[in-house]
Amino acid sequence: MGGDFGPRVIVPALVKSLRKHPGVSALVLGEQRTLDKALKDCSAADVLSRIQTCYSNSVIGDDDSASTIIRSRQDSSMGLALKAVADGDAHACISAGHTGPLMALALVILKTLPGISRPAICATFPTREGRSYILDLGANLDCSPAQLSQFAVLGSLVTRELEGISKPRVCLLNVGEEASKGNSVIKKTAGLLEAEPLVNYCGYVEGDGLFQGHAQVVVCDGFSGNVALKASEGVARMVNGMFSDLFRSSWLNRLAALLLGTSMNALKSRLDPAVYNGAYLLGLNGVTVKSHGGADKIAFAHALDVAIDAAKHNLPEVLSPILQSKIDNNQTAETN
Amino acid sequence: MGGDFGPRVIVPALVKSLRKHPGVSALVLGEQRTLDKALKDCSAADVLSRIQTCYSNSVIGDDDSASTIIRSRQDSSMGLALKAVADGDAHACISAGHTGPLMALALVILKTLPGISRPAICATFPTREGRSYILDLGANLDCSPAQLSQFAVLGSLVTRELEGISKPRVCLLNVGEEASKGNSVIKKTAGLLEAEPLVNYCGYVEGDGLFQGHAQVVVCDGFSGNVALKASEGVARMVNGMFSDLFRSSWLNRLAALLLGTSMNALKSRLDPAVYNGAYLLGLNGVTVKSHGGADKIAFAHALDVAIDAAKHNLPEVLSPILQSKIDNNQTAETN
Repeated sequence: MGGDFGPRVIVPALVKSLRKHPGVSALVLGEQRTLDKALKDCSAADVLSRIQTCYSNSVIGDDDSASTIIRSRQDSSMGLALKAVADGDAHACISAGHTGPLMALALVILKTLPGISRPAICATFPTREGRSYILDLGANLDCSPAQLSQFAVLGSLVTRELEGISKPRVCLLNVGEEASKGNSVIKKTAGLLEAEPLVNYCGYVEGDGLFQGHAQVVVCDGFSGNVALKASEGVARMVNGMFSDLFRSSWLNRLAALLLGTSMNALKSRLDPAVYNGAYLLGLNGVTVKSHGGADKIAFAHALDVAIDAAKHNLPEVLSPILQSKIDNNQTAETN
Repeated sequence: MGGDFGPRVIVPALVKSLRKHPGVSALVLGEQRTLDKALKDCSAADVLSRIQTCYSNSVIGDDDSASTIIRSRQDSSMGLALKAVADGDAHACISAGHTGPLMALALVILKTLPGISRPAICATFPTREGRSYILDLGANLDCSPAQLSQFAVLGSLVTRELEGISKPRVCLLNVGEEASKGNSVIKKTAGLLEAEPLVNYCGYVEGDGLFQGHAQVVVCDGFSGNVALKASEGVARMVNGMFSDLFRSSWLNRLAALLLGTSMNALKSRLDPAVYNGAYLLGLNGVTVKSHGGADKIAFAHALDVAIDAAKHNLPEVLSPILQSKIDNNQTAETN
């Protein structure tokens, strides 16, 4: 039970989520005293029977290196949550802790799916028409063409499974749409994707094209993906703030805000970053979802929805045989 | 006279600009027939005497390599415009043509300022408080720490000169604010900037922090800068579109739009990408400004304002001695 606000946000969000999903139960992991107090203070008697606890007093320090974490923090609440998934005691792990430790522990405890060298962080973002998937968002800052190609396969399979789109349009994030644009990594990746039967590759997409909806899966390295998505959130927040200021700036404008009423609120909530909280760590042998550390109750509840949905779709079980047969086919092709 | 729309946009924008700036005159370069026709059709008799023409029939092809451009396209309109600046016949060059050829020709014709290995594309973007500068935006997709450090110096000096801020806050674009975040290039650059006396280095900024205004100069490689700014434009355009749809969706909402009137328009125009058109090619020995290829009249007129302002400030002449004395100081330090 991590994140910037701990149980103060997580418990109310969990209660909200359990009420919404009657078939779901939760295993909450954390430091004993904090956990007991949080649940004692929780007045939601209707769902308490569906909340199990598991104590851990091993804490991951801000300065712990990846090797320290792997060697001696597997009994942290984060490590135990991942083990519960690995052992089949839980269908999904969700954490609002730091990405680095989560990734390090998930790699050793859950391991990756066949043919996947590193997991990628994948999230959805709004477009004018609906929503699209983007990966990686920061787990792998520098990526090889082979890695980016793996991300394209993962993103494509997940979008097919979760959105029911048979051949999602996959694009590579670049600084231009012409074939001559981009650095050597981008150009080599484009070559790999053109030859990849599991991917419906549709060329380059630029930053401003992200939100037009043509690209249903956007593939990029973790640095540019993180920058693109956070910059977009920043603009959306700034614009929302400017409109809020505008609607308060005179009585005429306050009246206008009243007239706009619910349709305005619907628009605002569609652009609210909270509604997009909850990123998949894709490519792992178990469902793992990362919430923003600073998520509020609504945002964390949304991340729970994301995890529950991925678990219901049995994402790793669906992906694993497809990825395995891809390896087998390549080997057969090499032998012949 | 390039860009997607040629004289159809450039001539009306130029007329608008010349009326706004009575002391400015223009040298327009392009293919003879197109140019003569465009100016013959132009009814702005009051400013025509301030427009000179220069013909060029050498056209840069979409498939021309950088070496072809340098070897045999220096007599294109773009090359001649840069030569006019190099020869002192013009104070600034502005082009809506492709960035690659402009950069290639500018490098050989104008050359870089002392100690600058490659120019960077630099533009302003809106923040909640005012505006900030960001570079590079796509001229250098992969950058070394030394290059990024040069960009920080350039951005800092230009912001000081153009905005009158004595010590602009310079930040490095990264995927987190903590010192441990980022790849090795970012971390090495941070080390260089901490030791750079010409830069008031203020740490990392994330994508969502761009628009808060803390960073007055944002330094990044051309790939992530391009992605960040274009993604931001994409979101701003999407949000603007959604609000426009909202204001048309019922008679109550149309009434609300009427009530908001001018204050709404002011907000929209502050977020309009056209108002941020016109990017400096910084680090060259002459003022060069790149307009969006798809700029309309208002956007191109804004890019003309940017060029005129940079020329009035004598940007290269102001920067050159500072950069030269930086080199001299380093050499003295090495000798001692």
